[in-house]
Amino acid sequence: MIDLSASDRVRQTTLESGLRVVTETMPHLETAALGVWVAAGSRAEREAENGIAHLLEHMAFKGTERRSARAIAEEIEAVGGELNAVTGLENTAYYARVLKDDVPLAIDILADIIQNSLFDPAELAREQGVIMQEIMAAHDTPDDLVFDLVQDAAFPGQSIGRSVLGTIDSIRGFTAADLDDFLTRNYAPDQMIVAAAGAVDHDALVADIADRFSVVRDASVDPAIPAQFDAGRNLLDRPLEQVHLVMGFSGIPICDRRIYAAQLLSTLLGGGMSSRLFQEIRERRGLCYGIYTYHWAVSDSGLFGLYAGTGPEQVEELADVVMTELAQVDDTVNDIELERAKAQLKAGLMMSLESPSSRIDQMARHLSAFDRIIPPAELIAGVEAVTRSDIAELADAVFGPDRAAVAAVGPEAGLASLAVFGSNRST
Amino acid sequence: MIDLSASDRVRQTTLESGLRVVTETMPHLETAALGVWVAAGSRAEREAENGIAHLLEHMAFKGTERRSARAIAEEIEAVGGELNAVTGLENTAYYARVLKDDVPLAIDILADIIQNSLFDPAELAREQGVIMQEIMAAHDTPDDLVFDLVQDAAFPGQSIGRSVLGTIDSIRGFTAADLDDFLTRNYAPDQMIVAAAGAVDHDALVADIADRFSVVRDASVDPAIPAQFDAGRNLLDRPLEQVHLVMGFSGIPICDRRIYAAQLLSTLLGGGMSSRLFQEIRERRGLCYGIYTYHWAVSDSGLFGLYAGTGPEQVEELADVVMTELAQVDDTVNDIELERAKAQLKAGLMMSLESPSSRIDQMARHLSAFDRIIPPAELIAGVEAVTRSDIAELADAVFGPDRAAVAAVGPEAGLASLAVFGSNRST
Repeated sequence: MIDLSASDRVRQTTLESGLRVVTETMPHLETAALGVWVAAGSRAEREAENGIAHLLEHMAFKGTERRSARAIAEEIEAVGGELNAVTGLENTAYYARVLKDDVPLAIDILADIIQNSLFDPAELAREQGVIMQEIMAAHDTPDDLVFDLVQDAAFPGQSIGRSVLGTIDSIRGFTAADLDDFLTRNYAPDQMIVAAAGAVDHDALVADIADRFSVVRDASVDPAIPAQFDAGRNLLDRPLEQVHLVMGFSGIPICDRRIYAAQLLSTLLGGGMSSRLFQEIRERRGLCYGIYTYHWAVSDSGLFGLYAGTGPEQVEELADVVMTELAQVDDTVNDIELERAKAQLKAGLMMSLESPSSRIDQMARHLSAFDRIIPPAELIAGVEAVTRSDIAELADAVFGPDRAAVAAVGPEAGLASLAVFGSNRST
Repeated sequence: MIDLSASDRVRQTTLESGLRVVTETMPHLETAALGVWVAAGSRAEREAENGIAHLLEHMAFKGTERRSARAIAEEIEAVGGELNAVTGLENTAYYARVLKDDVPLAIDILADIIQNSLFDPAELAREQGVIMQEIMAAHDTPDDLVFDLVQDAAFPGQSIGRSVLGTIDSIRGFTAADLDDFLTRNYAPDQMIVAAAGAVDHDALVADIADRFSVVRDASVDPAIPAQFDAGRNLLDRPLEQVHLVMGFSGIPICDRRIYAAQLLSTLLGGGMSSRLFQEIRERRGLCYGIYTYHWAVSDSGLFGLYAGTGPEQVEELADVVMTELAQVDDTVNDIELERAKAQLKAGLMMSLESPSSRIDQMARHLSAFDRIIPPAELIAGVEAVTRSDIAELADAVFGPDRAAVAAVGPEAGLASLAVFGSNRST
């Protein structure tokens, strides 16, 4: 049996600098996943900085005092390893996936690129071009674009509502000094978490990290501005075959005790083939191919979202049925579907415990939100404790036709029926 | 250490019916991945059947004598399991991911839906609508669509060149009798492989499978028609921000001894951040965000492909640089990059050995191509044995400006410079 307390496999150390390290040793593995989470995502950006957290993440791969951009790529791939990075709302993560013996190399490279990047002007100009191409690619992909649109509809005029990628214009304007300023404010050791799982030794890793993450810096992070949800509307006319639709409702912050209920509500509404929306909209009515719900949470806010893609003639029926389903879940949730949703979350957790990549994500999320790793048994108990009335109360608090932020991309004929939702901010 | 021979963990049994079973027990896991591979993908379709293999895969989830569509979804998700399926060129795979104790249930459901589906007319009509939505979604996603276009440019007028999804018209026309006919010709036990990995017991699984896969049938598979590669061109004018481009060259069949060289060539050209094309086109010239190469192989053919997305003004330069890089690799491949590509493939293999989902895919692929599981040590030896001259010979045999099948989706201004390639089949 997997030890659900996992207490002897998970170890945590805080360095003098404030940098936190957490590891889970999986003794049967020959490979490791590790990453550095910096508490600086797009929400840390000032209004004129839209896209700078992501640009900084890209520039981390473009050269340091010790390594050219090419050397960074060649050193990690020479041992068959992989580097990657992703910029989120509240953090930016730099990942490595390597064989056991290459963990020290991965730490050395990650520490180097996070602390010592140079922002060479020629490299910066080229990378601005690369990100402009990335923005164009996102614009061409309706089920990327619609998620940016709903973010703006739900959190207008706030950093949490702006695209992580920035805009062509904002990206063009950034200089090395802008990057330095953002980095200096946000990239301090006490804003960083290193998480590793798989074939790793905690003490050796901590020693390596203490050696390599030696830059001393006091963060001067801007005071957090609370997220303000708005039931806005953002419809974009494009000559496509489908309307790609997202509806978003104000969600639950990560530390709120209702987070388990929010995950269960999302699962039973649109988390699998047996979920209410999949059964009613795809299986019974054949209205779409892709439909699902999700719930994301940050420190003070969250979003309960629903994606569906359908033909322009089917949008009105689909949106009506969605609103009906959301409106009636509080009165009709039953024990069978709640137990099924619990089984889905618990099995998903068991599977994630066997994957070092999933495990580091989860541990870093816990450490940043709760300053401790929640043991699997406690997570399972949290899921088990949710009752039908918890779900009903939450659904009642979250859903309602005048509470939906709505975004869609598609042909004009398919957008008209969505004009009943929210206040328009289409451009 | 992982036992690279893996001989005592991998076991294989052929049932009297001809159905083959292969398992790898991973004693430290509490979950299992399993799947059934049927040797009937889109290549098994006759001309009038385009899309029927994929429709049949969808209809497998729409009800049997014992289970309604809803019951199939509810039974697996009640234990937190997942079912999924994917239709390929030469096979269709039905997957389950479950906790240890639920392996027998997963086998029972998979056997039921693969052997006993009903093709109820009302369910069929609805599912035809769902697949039409799936086709529309693929049309709206340029980096899906362009892969269908290159398949058609490279293998015109052949089942291997047609979209696995079929067309709106072909899907609309199919009846339950058509599905029965395709199933009867192709879904015989000796055309099936069951692969399982993780917390599984070989003998118990074989007994369950012998019980549940009881339908007796002689396949009457159509004689294979050899794939004929063509250097065609397929350009589609769409009002997008980028041109999404794929170039394809005739590749290496899966049983060809040059398959290791093909994988290494793809890796060193476009398999990571240190690869030639990534370095030259993204890092040195800033021409794109996404660029990568791939090589897929089937029984008698393969495709060496390259994807890139770029702005209309950059297409000409990008295509020129790609052709120059491909033309010079045979004369310039060096030991450092070859060793790096080998390290990437070997580390990727080590990581896949730790994932039950990756492992079942690999074992099913081996069994269907070689009728045995190639031990990891033999795969590594195959990679190690490739020399610079093997790479040079292969590159020389594969690449050349008049040997490229070219497909692109994007604004007309960006397509013009691609008209120098291949023979046009744009519509």
